[in-house]
Amino acid sequence: MARINFYEYIVFILFSLLILHTFSIIAHSKKLDEKQPCKRFVLYYHDILFNGSNAANATSATVANHTKLGNFNHGMLVVFDDPITKDNHLLSPPVARAQGFYFYDMKTAYNAWFSYTLIFNSTEHKGTINIMGADMMGEETRDLSVVGGTGDFFMTRGIATFRTDIAQDDYYFRLEMDIKLYECY
Amino acid sequence: MARINFYEYIVFILFSLLILHTFSIIAHSKKLDEKQPCKRFVLYYHDILFNGSNAANATSATVANHTKLGNFNHGMLVVFDDPITKDNHLLSPPVARAQGFYFYDMKTAYNAWFSYTLIFNSTEHKGTINIMGADMMGEETRDLSVVGGTGDFFMTRGIATFRTDIAQDDYYFRLEMDIKLYECY
Amino acid sequence: MARINFYEYIVFILFSLLILHTFSIIAHSKKLDEKQPCKRFVLYYHDILFNGSNAANATSATVANHTKLGNFNHGMLVVFDDPITKDNHLLSPPVARAQGFYFYDMKTAYNAWFSYTLIFNSTEHKGTINIMGADMMGEETRDLSVVGGTGDFFMTRGIATFRTDIAQDDYYFRLEMDIKLYECY
Repeated sequence: MARINFYEYIVFILFSLLILHTFSIIAHSKKLDEKQPCKRFVLYYHDILFNGSNAANATSATVANHTKLGNFNHGMLVVFDDPITKDNHLLSPPVARAQGFYFYDMKTAYNAWFSYTLIFNSTEHKGTINIMGADMMGEETRDLSVVGGTGDFFMTRGIATFRTDIAQDDYYFRLEMDIKLYECY
Repeated sequence: MARINFYEYIVFILFSLLILHTFSIIAHSKKLDEKQPCKRFVLYYHDILFNGSNAANATSATVANHTKLGNFNHGMLVVFDDPITKDNHLLSPPVARAQGFYFYDMKTAYNAWFSYTLIFNSTEHKGTINIMGADMMGEETRDLSVVGGTGDFFMTRGIATFRTDIAQDDYYFRLEMDIKLYECY
Repeated sequence: MARINFYEYIVFILFSLLILHTFSIIAHSKKLDEKQPCKRFVLYYHDILFNGSNAANATSATVANHTKLGNFNHGMLVVFDDPITKDNHLLSPPVARAQGFYFYDMKTAYNAWFSYTLIFNSTEHKGTINIMGADMMGEETRDLSVVGGTGDFFMTRGIATFRTDIAQDDYYFRLEMDIKLYECY
């Protein structure tokens, strides 16, 4: 009987492991939980638009002027190399740069579209995160897609949630960017 | 003998489960079947280009004029906020907006490149889908990449197949966009 | 005893298979090894900028002139339809086209940002690969993201590593693009 119990015990263990495997397969391949990013950080984006006389401070400039469609800068295209900080102070030491562009795209309201790269080059992080999507400025928060990454952020994907921290005024605006990564390697 | 048969039976079941697991692992981690999207919908994209006098109807405008390279509008860059409908009637109620840009890029033929966001904000769908890729206008159909999504389309990826429904004429053109998603969460 | 040994043997085999499965699940769902792309190829990108008199050879043209922010062409936006070759000779038969755009984005150094599609249409490969990211020209190599693909490259993702092969001079420059794909279907 002892022998038999030993096999019963082994069979029970094997069966338990199989059940565990089933859950692990389902967990890994089917579900991403929006509330459980594998990495998350909140950053601040500062854009100082070149106005002809602020070259020392400016970090972006208008590449194509707005069109005559509506009164909300439709078509105005800005290329930027903007500092990214951990808190919302413009003069805090930048932890990254954001390089890319945005343009305004609506005729009835201010509304923008972004595509850019976050470039990290510090002891903490080295690598890039690539982001694109609509910035629906009328919404309190809006989600863009993190579509790829390199270096420390190799092959990542996720969501970047924008929140306007200071709306544009005197050629300066600031966004809070809440970066949530759901694929980390 | 009865006892022995019982173990043989258990061992057989465990072995079968293992084989099933193997297939399930292979299925989940290796294969996406191009013919089996997890979500699919066909939409129509309407672009009415601003010509200076149609501001009431126009949904897009030229931000940078074409260059002098060739005779096919090379470099002409258009920013749009275009209505998306379920059927191919311009005046059907829009189910989404497409915000982004396209430009022409060839010197020997009409050929375009798109990057844009589909924005859904209805009872049926809330969220965005981000798309980019070449629009090889000489081909009957051409595939662009769905590179990300948010909201109801959280973290999605897939293929957007374009087909010209009405070629540009009098500042209007229409595309059929067949959106096939292969990663749904 | 022979019978018992037979079951011990079966149990041992099942247990080994379970361990193997565990590794396979971990391998498939958790890890992408940066050194083990599922597909890799090195290509050369040739950009001949239109200067007003070289229309026969030019493959790209400036769509928006540089801004006055700094002395490094900030904001200069170029749309291209460039040949891609397997070796670094401009006149080798192209294996693909690269269609998209780049712009310069820094005020203190030459630095660019790219978004484009590699279009393959040969007996060897049919399909497209979509790429975006920062081209930090001051670095020996820099990584951009492969964010999607179609056709033979259905749903692919990966990294495109740029290396300057010939820096811009007389309206010509050449990049080595080392394409490493980590998701192949």
